[in-house]
Amino acid sequence: MTKQIVTPSILPGFMELLPADQIVFNNMLDTIKKNYEKYGFIPVDTPMIEKSEVLLAKGGGETEKQIYRFNKGDNDLSLRFDLTVPLARFVAQHFGELTFPFKRYHIGKVFRGEKPQKGRFREFYQCDIDIIGNESLSVINDAEILSVIYSTFKALGFDDFTIRINNRKILNGFFESIKVSDKTEVLRTIDKLEKIGNEAVAAELKTIGLSDKDANSVLRFVGIKGSCNEILKSLKELGIENDTFAEGVKELEEVLNYIAAFKVPVANYTVDLTIARGLDYYTGTIYETILNQYPSIGSVCSGGRYDNLAQNYTNKKLPGVGISIGLTRLFYQLRAAGVVGGTKKATTSKILVIPMQETMAQSLELSTKLREADIPTEIYFNEGKMGKKFSYADKLGIPYVIVVGEDEVKAGKFKLKNMETGEQIELELEQIIEKLKS
Amino acid sequence: MTKQIVTPSILPGFMELLPADQIVFNNMLDTIKKNYEKYGFIPVDTPMIEKSEVLLAKGGGETEKQIYRFNKGDNDLSLRFDLTVPLARFVAQHFGELTFPFKRYHIGKVFRGEKPQKGRFREFYQCDIDIIGNESLSVINDAEILSVIYSTFKALGFDDFTIRINNRKILNGFFESIKVSDKTEVLRTIDKLEKIGNEAVAAELKTIGLSDKDANSVLRFVGIKGSCNEILKSLKELGIENDTFAEGVKELEEVLNYIAAFKVPVANYTVDLTIARGLDYYTGTIYETILNQYPSIGSVCSGGRYDNLAQNYTNKKLPGVGISIGLTRLFYQLRAAGVVGGTKKATTSKILVIPMQETMAQSLELSTKLREADIPTEIYFNEGKMGKKFSYADKLGIPYVIVVGEDEVKAGKFKLKNMETGEQIELELEQIIEKLKS
Repeated sequence: MTKQIVTPSILPGFMELLPADQIVFNNMLDTIKKNYEKYGFIPVDTPMIEKSEVLLAKGGGETEKQIYRFNKGDNDLSLRFDLTVPLARFVAQHFGELTFPFKRYHIGKVFRGEKPQKGRFREFYQCDIDIIGNESLSVINDAEILSVIYSTFKALGFDDFTIRINNRKILNGFFESIKVSDKTEVLRTIDKLEKIGNEAVAAELKTIGLSDKDANSVLRFVGIKGSCNEILKSLKELGIENDTFAEGVKELEEVLNYIAAFKVPVANYTVDLTIARGLDYYTGTIYETILNQYPSIGSVCSGGRYDNLAQNYTNKKLPGVGISIGLTRLFYQLRAAGVVGGTKKATTSKILVIPMQETMAQSLELSTKLREADIPTEIYFNEGKMGKKFSYADKLGIPYVIVVGEDEVKAGKFKLKNMETGEQIELELEQIIEKLKS
Repeated sequence: MTKQIVTPSILPGFMELLPADQIVFNNMLDTIKKNYEKYGFIPVDTPMIEKSEVLLAKGGGETEKQIYRFNKGDNDLSLRFDLTVPLARFVAQHFGELTFPFKRYHIGKVFRGEKPQKGRFREFYQCDIDIIGNESLSVINDAEILSVIYSTFKALGFDDFTIRINNRKILNGFFESIKVSDKTEVLRTIDKLEKIGNEAVAAELKTIGLSDKDANSVLRFVGIKGSCNEILKSLKELGIENDTFAEGVKELEEVLNYIAAFKVPVANYTVDLTIARGLDYYTGTIYETILNQYPSIGSVCSGGRYDNLAQNYTNKKLPGVGISIGLTRLFYQLRAAGVVGGTKKATTSKILVIPMQETMAQSLELSTKLREADIPTEIYFNEGKMGKKFSYADKLGIPYVIVVGEDEVKAGKFKLKNMETGEQIELELEQIIEKLKS
């Protein structure tokens, strides 16, 4: 019988990394996780497979088409397509056992069967935080979330990024004040502002039914620019008499006051009245985050405030505020832009121990001692030429190598070779441990 | 329209933890990960969804019935049911880009649609390591894997565990020497030894076709007990003239020599000639690990040596050795036994900052400074009675609380309350940071 060989390959739209990139990716995940924990967020890990009736309780929309849904036995199952729906289900289900405000982080893969295209993935990591209140939740939390975005991107090594802030109540109140019937259409038109300019937008706004006055009003509104304080001033001067609008402006003002107290630098945030983040979910503060040197990536961290997290699963009112970082896509884009990756280091080992045939036992002992001192240590077991052994360290990017010969064992001193500089220094084991720990 | 409420629930056979348990679980995952990295294993993360033809290349068996398999568009998809098949595919696919021996760890969820029963899960974490050689792989690696098992369970806080070692070549060679035609049946019978005793086993062995002599031979073989050296001696004294057997004994002897050099205590490993770990995959050393105080859990870490990892995907010969810890099941069992869980601590925060209305800005600043010093810090934003605020810290198990009043801000000193002892000490911010860091 001839053995049948199946060509090893993965599906299009799925990301798989080689070790060097995987290490960079994992470091980013760890950085995000540590930062979320620094703000007191608690880990949650929900099943990847849930009942379709639960995941699709909200129903409708693009999501339902993209979802991976299937049967097993009598069960109608779906793979989770985000971490927000599972959070809503989790909080409703375990309500009595949770402490509120409930601050959770969740880092995990989600699945969407989108048409494969460059930079879009069918399986990708989301890194989410949400703060869920029981009945009510102070707007200061919206500022804290901003502070988390800031510190997370700083920790990831970015300096030049801008968190764009808006408030859905300002948008809604404004549209109410000019009695726009189809907000979606207006927002879609506004989105073209940069591309087609003021006049063309005004024309389109009229086509969709706005009066001259209202179209001008819209243009004046989205044309409001300046520092946070200038924008607040301009908003108040618009003279819009609408409660929702007034509330939105008040919330925005509070968020801006608090964010200053969190010591987020003014350079890293701005008010942008044109961002909307969809229409049906968010109800207050909304966020987008732009890497200023890579604007084409789009928002790398988005989210906002919502009134009612779990209305499909409970009658309890659970307002919340949260954000999500889509790390798989972000990593892909950053790698394409040459910002991350391209490193040779394909291991986290700090030292390679090369034993000789006659010093194997001593080499194993020595390696055990290094590991007991928390130093990631590899031993090269294959026989062969010394060059090949050093080349192993070189290929993986292991920074130090020692060769354990009989003389070294007798003297209790080992030549520690720095693989980058080629420098060799003779040290006792304790000294090696000290050097590698620092 | 009345809102339709869907009962929030998850599928049977899926594990979901509340925060306190989740934190314990994540700590175990982290401990395993760190320990794997200490031995130089490199992280790999493969897609959860793969082509069915790839995942099922080997075909047949229980696996195929349990697999979650479905169609999306034209694709025949499956969820991975272990981490070994994806590893084989990964190594075959990226062969030219990997450095060998390739030491990888993979921690992630796998999926098996088993009949739900207590302690069995349809979605569970596996924590795998494997060392893959190109063409050949020294048997010293088998000893290193043993050392990893030892240090991992030590790091997880266990002392009283035994790693059982056997070698498939010894079993195969022995069976060849007595010309057993159906090894599976013999092994199944041997498995009943503890339950039904020697005589009943001998009788059954004869029923399945063994001669008196061979049945006695089997009983003598599996009756070999003692220290590692005693067992080695007994094996040699059996006088079996079979090359496979001899090779197995030699490999076992080498592994035992090296494992001593790795400084694994004799109390934590033993040779057990009765373990077999299935029949078609492993070809040399095999491992099982038993927590001696909880033998009913069964093996908590198993694995072994195989000749050919990726024969379904490549003609290259890729021998390897590896182990797997099924953490979801282990956690479930340990929790049921009261070994883990039951803790109240439902956060990783170290301190809760309680602001007053008039000190909000200073409280935010202070919290930012604590976080900049890497101290996980929460701020309590809800208004209400002081008792409720302290109760939040108490419920989550946050160890320290400070209330930031105007007097405290003026004096630059804060009363740090130890929530466990009730003790309060007045400290400056720098002193608080120092205290919480240690």
